[in-house]
Amino acid sequence: MTKSQAFAAHSASSPLSPFTLERRDPGPEDIQIDIQYCGVCHSDLHTARNEWGSTVYPCVPGHEIVGKVTAVGANVKKFKVGDTAAVGCMVDSCRQCASCQQGLENYCDNFILTYNSPDKHLGGVTLGGYAQSIVVDQHFVFRVPENLPLPAVAPLLCAGITTYSPLRHWKVGPGQKVGVVGLGGLGHMGVKLAHALGAHVVLFTTSPGKAEDGKRLGADEVVISRDAEAMAKQGGFDFILDTVSAKHDINPYLNMLKRDGTVVLVGAPNEPLPTAAFGLIFKRRQFAGSLIGGVPETQEMLDFCGKHGITADVEVIPIQQINEAYERMLKSDVKYRFVIDMASLKSR
Amino acid sequence: MTKSQAFAAHSASSPLSPFTLERRDPGPEDIQIDIQYCGVCHSDLHTARNEWGSTVYPCVPGHEIVGKVTAVGANVKKFKVGDTAAVGCMVDSCRQCASCQQGLENYCDNFILTYNSPDKHLGGVTLGGYAQSIVVDQHFVFRVPENLPLPAVAPLLCAGITTYSPLRHWKVGPGQKVGVVGLGGLGHMGVKLAHALGAHVVLFTTSPGKAEDGKRLGADEVVISRDAEAMAKQGGFDFILDTVSAKHDINPYLNMLKRDGTVVLVGAPNEPLPTAAFGLIFKRRQFAGSLIGGVPETQEMLDFCGKHGITADVEVIPIQQINEAYERMLKSDVKYRFVIDMASLKSR
Repeated sequence: MTKSQAFAAHSASSPLSPFTLERRDPGPEDIQIDIQYCGVCHSDLHTARNEWGSTVYPCVPGHEIVGKVTAVGANVKKFKVGDTAAVGCMVDSCRQCASCQQGLENYCDNFILTYNSPDKHLGGVTLGGYAQSIVVDQHFVFRVPENLPLPAVAPLLCAGITTYSPLRHWKVGPGQKVGVVGLGGLGHMGVKLAHALGAHVVLFTTSPGKAEDGKRLGADEVVISRDAEAMAKQGGFDFILDTVSAKHDINPYLNMLKRDGTVVLVGAPNEPLPTAAFGLIFKRRQFAGSLIGGVPETQEMLDFCGKHGITADVEVIPIQQINEAYERMLKSDVKYRFVIDMASLKSR
Repeated sequence: MTKSQAFAAHSASSPLSPFTLERRDPGPEDIQIDIQYCGVCHSDLHTARNEWGSTVYPCVPGHEIVGKVTAVGANVKKFKVGDTAAVGCMVDSCRQCASCQQGLENYCDNFILTYNSPDKHLGGVTLGGYAQSIVVDQHFVFRVPENLPLPAVAPLLCAGITTYSPLRHWKVGPGQKVGVVGLGGLGHMGVKLAHALGAHVVLFTTSPGKAEDGKRLGADEVVISRDAEAMAKQGGFDFILDTVSAKHDINPYLNMLKRDGTVVLVGAPNEPLPTAAFGLIFKRRQFAGSLIGGVPETQEMLDFCGKHGITADVEVIPIQQINEAYERMLKSDVKYRFVIDMASLKSR
């Protein structure tokens, strides 16, 4: 067992604070990673504050992890000490169900999330990436393209794959008109990826101030979703990626789809979204959801980002600013993802 | 022009009563049909009573039409005088859009419904099948398998195709677990067709009294949807066809789907259905709609029904009982479709 410095939430109402956790010694299939950067996802905040009701404390969030390999188990072939490696939202799954067999570990009923899932090795729950190091089964560790700046790679492991997976599953590509709703951590990756996949991208945002930025990120058009007149003119969409996690009216987006088009929800509003039957029936439209992505498509996404020079737009912070970052995240005051420089752990 | 006896609604609040309408003389592409039977669809009642707000009076409902050909235009090759023929929900469409080109006239933005759509030939609105005769472009007239009892064929033209089209589009077949929600006009056809397509069929109904009948119609299992315990045990569905047109909770059905499964709405509740994001996201599930069916798949459905000996379960009534039938339909007091014997028009 190895001790690792970390930051943890000790209750739903206390700020995150320094904490020392223990990592298992690497087994034959394991890779030990010295964490260099960890992205800050809205799920981290939800979990730290027990907003989904299932948090076990102390809780160490973080599932957008990049770092250097410091040890590998006997059966590990694809990594060696010194390599750059990445870990995302999952660290294990059952490996046997149909979803696992098809490389869709993200839909395994028994997947193990990077934090706050049962830890079969040490008991208790898994502890995430707001830490000096982590030990992960090689199946859930990814290669990182060498040409990309490392802090900006970290958010690809959640925000990147969460948007890439549905864009690929629903076969977004050239000649298609694709909407992205919301310009936050997920939305800004959705715009970049849909653009790189060759689609005509229309960004929907509530903030007129984000129009310029939307175009810089790859949107061909920006529509202010509070402008009813502008919204009423929209139509002919093949696919709309909805990244908004607050309650919002989904029906205008459903009604913009052409026949057989799909709106896919990747944000997770807590309240049910009223869905009008006629919007679905009249053009055989579909309203769907999508959850992160599987292991093979996560590697594919990283390789795609390497090829197209795509990373997240990030603001790098020392871990001592994590609580302030959470408050700013709640106000959408970040363009577009906080990433913790884990070197700051040593300087506390 | 030919006069035809009919029954019409003259206002939203008056009962249907005898009416004489005029049909155009058959043009080169037209087929004139002496109507023998016409099914009674819930849409007839909605329209007669202006519940969708767009009814033009006098209104002659009816879009489940079977009868004998009495005249054909010069360009009509597929029918001759004396043939049995059928007409469904549409009598024309633009013929030029992508949907029309693909035989999905039901998704044409400018389709002409059998009643209460603009009539380009005579002005006013189209008048439906509660009448002695009708004249329809041959593209929208179907051949009827000779082995099926004619009164029981009529409902196939709406209830049949409305359920057949999504079952086929989502590729329902052997080895699949398929749910059908609701056992009315649509639901009873859904059960018969899903069974004939080889799926394991589970009927969901609010009425314990319908369990026996559900099994007789082809359901392998019947679940009483008001029984929360029985509902909680359900899962693993590939596809669920929801035929309920009253407001109801869609989320238990979404949550029963396996990964990539779909709930398809063919009933049209007036109020939006609250849809929980997590139900969609966690297994990449889909909530979709479907509207009647295209011309080629309507003929395919009739041929399929001929091959498998499938018709609707009907109660044949004289047209003089139509207002009473509407009241009974509102109480779901029909197994499972009223069909008007149009010979009764002559005996008034």
